[in-house]
Amino acid sequence: MILDYGNMMERRIGSGGIKGIDDCADAYKRVTDNFGKGWQEWNELMTDAEIEEIRSFCAPICASAQSVVVLGIGGSALGPLAVANALLHLRHNELSPRVRKVPKFYVEDNIDPERMEALLDVIDPDNTYFTVITKSGETSETLSQFLIVYDLLKKRLGAKAGSHIIAVTTIGKGTLYDIAVKEGFRIFGIGKGVGGRFSVLSPVGLVPLALVGIDIKALVDGARKAEKYCTDGDINKNIALMMAALNVAAYKKGCNINVMMPYADSLKYMSDFYAQLWGESLGKKKDLSGNVVHIGQTPVKSLGVTDQHSQIQLYTEGPFDKTVTFLSVKKFRRSCLIPETNVDGIDFLKGHTLNELIDAECKATAFALKKAGRMNMTLCLDEVTPRSIGELIMIFMFETAYAGAMLNVDAYDQPGVEEGKKATFAMMGRVGYEEKLKEMSFSENEYIIERN
Amino acid sequence: MILDYGNMMERRIGSGGIKGIDDCADAYKRVTDNFGKGWQEWNELMTDAEIEEIRSFCAPICASAQSVVVLGIGGSALGPLAVANALLHLRHNELSPRVRKVPKFYVEDNIDPERMEALLDVIDPDNTYFTVITKSGETSETLSQFLIVYDLLKKRLGAKAGSHIIAVTTIGKGTLYDIAVKEGFRIFGIGKGVGGRFSVLSPVGLVPLALVGIDIKALVDGARKAEKYCTDGDINKNIALMMAALNVAAYKKGCNINVMMPYADSLKYMSDFYAQLWGESLGKKKDLSGNVVHIGQTPVKSLGVTDQHSQIQLYTEGPFDKTVTFLSVKKFRRSCLIPETNVDGIDFLKGHTLNELIDAECKATAFALKKAGRMNMTLCLDEVTPRSIGELIMIFMFETAYAGAMLNVDAYDQPGVEEGKKATFAMMGRVGYEEKLKEMSFSENEYIIERN
Repeated sequence: MILDYGNMMERRIGSGGIKGIDDCADAYKRVTDNFGKGWQEWNELMTDAEIEEIRSFCAPICASAQSVVVLGIGGSALGPLAVANALLHLRHNELSPRVRKVPKFYVEDNIDPERMEALLDVIDPDNTYFTVITKSGETSETLSQFLIVYDLLKKRLGAKAGSHIIAVTTIGKGTLYDIAVKEGFRIFGIGKGVGGRFSVLSPVGLVPLALVGIDIKALVDGARKAEKYCTDGDINKNIALMMAALNVAAYKKGCNINVMMPYADSLKYMSDFYAQLWGESLGKKKDLSGNVVHIGQTPVKSLGVTDQHSQIQLYTEGPFDKTVTFLSVKKFRRSCLIPETNVDGIDFLKGHTLNELIDAECKATAFALKKAGRMNMTLCLDEVTPRSIGELIMIFMFETAYAGAMLNVDAYDQPGVEEGKKATFAMMGRVGYEEKLKEMSFSENEYIIERN
Repeated sequence: MILDYGNMMERRIGSGGIKGIDDCADAYKRVTDNFGKGWQEWNELMTDAEIEEIRSFCAPICASAQSVVVLGIGGSALGPLAVANALLHLRHNELSPRVRKVPKFYVEDNIDPERMEALLDVIDPDNTYFTVITKSGETSETLSQFLIVYDLLKKRLGAKAGSHIIAVTTIGKGTLYDIAVKEGFRIFGIGKGVGGRFSVLSPVGLVPLALVGIDIKALVDGARKAEKYCTDGDINKNIALMMAALNVAAYKKGCNINVMMPYADSLKYMSDFYAQLWGESLGKKKDLSGNVVHIGQTPVKSLGVTDQHSQIQLYTEGPFDKTVTFLSVKKFRRSCLIPETNVDGIDFLKGHTLNELIDAECKATAFALKKAGRMNMTLCLDEVTPRSIGELIMIFMFETAYAGAMLNVDAYDQPGVEEGKKATFAMMGRVGYEEKLKEMSFSENEYIIERN
């Protein structure tokens, strides 16, 4: 893993850049002193024995099932989705079973009725296993999906239905846990101090990923490796601490937008994973001293080279309000040669590979941003493997934890989503939310344009 | 189509909102006076005869082909992708041919070698038709893809290979046009004054969409309907002009982020389409008078309810730096009932549908943002149909054109991407770019962290 952050620095790009890196000793100490306390258990990685327990439970299902479905949302979905997209074939579900070898994989992180019905159109429930994931055990969206699926399974499989459900939740607490115990589902626990968005290396990610044959041991090994250098006290050797310091410095300089732009389709959903970590952890009304600060840098997902033809115009010429992190890959797992051509305008392409072209475009875009005085850095993976993805996840989680400490906010809560939950309960007629429903009622017709 | 913008206004949400709508007469006049001139031919919609010509060419392929692939990027890809995602089954490519009835559909808007090889793993080239789309006829990425595919087709089909390629490009100009004439491909033209990001209702979108059986006549009819009300001189009847005025007012008030958040998986890629329009059209260094302004609001793609569990914490509690546009759907095409349950914590869900739940969550999120004093508006589609999608596209394009006039920028150029193109040519060894390569050379090893 290589971080190249020269294009963040004033010395390289001019006044748009950062003069130097602030001292991060305090933030470093606050994070590393609190390992294992409160919500900071996410870096206590699973042991080989625990990993083997998951693997051995999942292996027979992986070998025989037609499909695996994750029912979950937010932290219970983005991790498995990002890792699976990185490590499975990019058209996994469309491969023939003979080539695919492992089950099809679906992450259903929405309650759109068209999407739910579309899933049921293409899977054979009798040969499908559902991983139901909710840390609290109370997530309305996930429980709704579960009720629909379990009802269907019971109608088709009778008493065997329960063997098709795997619950990942907090042991001993919550609605999903109660149902799982009563119905005899296999249960995997989520540690008390592991929050949803930091949980991909717990059973939340490892169970569904093992069900589709991903090497979860190698994934965790990569995370273990990264943990070492992400806890290095020397910022010049600590990729996560350096990235946090750079992005926080950029934020303080007025860059309220943080673009993550992988140059690889396999890493596309790593941006979504990062966006949740960064947005939900740092976007806060109050700091740790209780001051109202309304703080937070907005993560933006982009994809190279695709979005060069959509967003780079804005990034290059628009306001100096963003910093860009490129994720690049040194060695792709496939190679694709551009054939001979004798057409004048494109003869410079012949004999090259798409591998060379995408690499050239990534470097060219970084150069063009630099020339326009725009901050950018590049995090380069040698190759996309379970190990390197485990590393990357750990870098992102440490970076977020350090940035939380630097900004003096609680990186682990999300008080801002409560109002919306209450309003949803009110609209769904839940007992006890009658007053909220009244508060929401509104009969004015001003500010509406209707065209039929 | 209903626009509800009450939650943008100070009267409703407090000091975070807009006091009133500025007079937009000048911007309105500058856009409507220039119809048909320069780059503003996009609203000259295709005639019924032209649409029928496309449809009748595409119908036999649609009836017999196994797959249709779009080779294009940016404006040549996002339109067809967004419309197809809205109107095809959400698991279209996974349906059995008997249920699907029309070809599988792929939009290949990247040059990642793993993605290109993954595509070739799952399609049967002999039964696949490729629409190669580039306005200039010179786009390196698209031409690379074309060379790879055409070489493969020639090896398999010999002289018949050309009948599997359909070129959509500027007639009489550019590398793709020259090749197409020489090789005898069917060619569809793109009007001179229609830029890539405004071209989805030209053959750029209509050809690939007709190849998968989408009712392109109804799509254009919807656009025609919207054109009427998007050119209404009264802003209180003109959804596009009002949305432009609101977003520009929000930008001037400090909201440099514009979030588009559909509450429907079918509309997910309409956000990508909008993001290109909004970002590339308005993100400019210079205004029309030549002043350096570095202007532009950054579009952010979000998806309800999914991103309530990822981004809403930030939107509700973070800085007052964004405005949110929800896209909601009154009537989904499928319905999904949540079954009976006797579990206490979730009995409020029973008997309801996912349709009701997603609708409640959209309204609840708008309410929660309003309560936190955050600007938001909701654009509501009756139902997702070819007509309503045609309407929505037209609203977005008019909104962007009006916003360009309000901000006094050229909404139709993209000078900021040239530097990156030149740097790519240099890195790929194109003759004439030797000096650029020297400019890019850099041997310093400072600001690099490598961990192995």
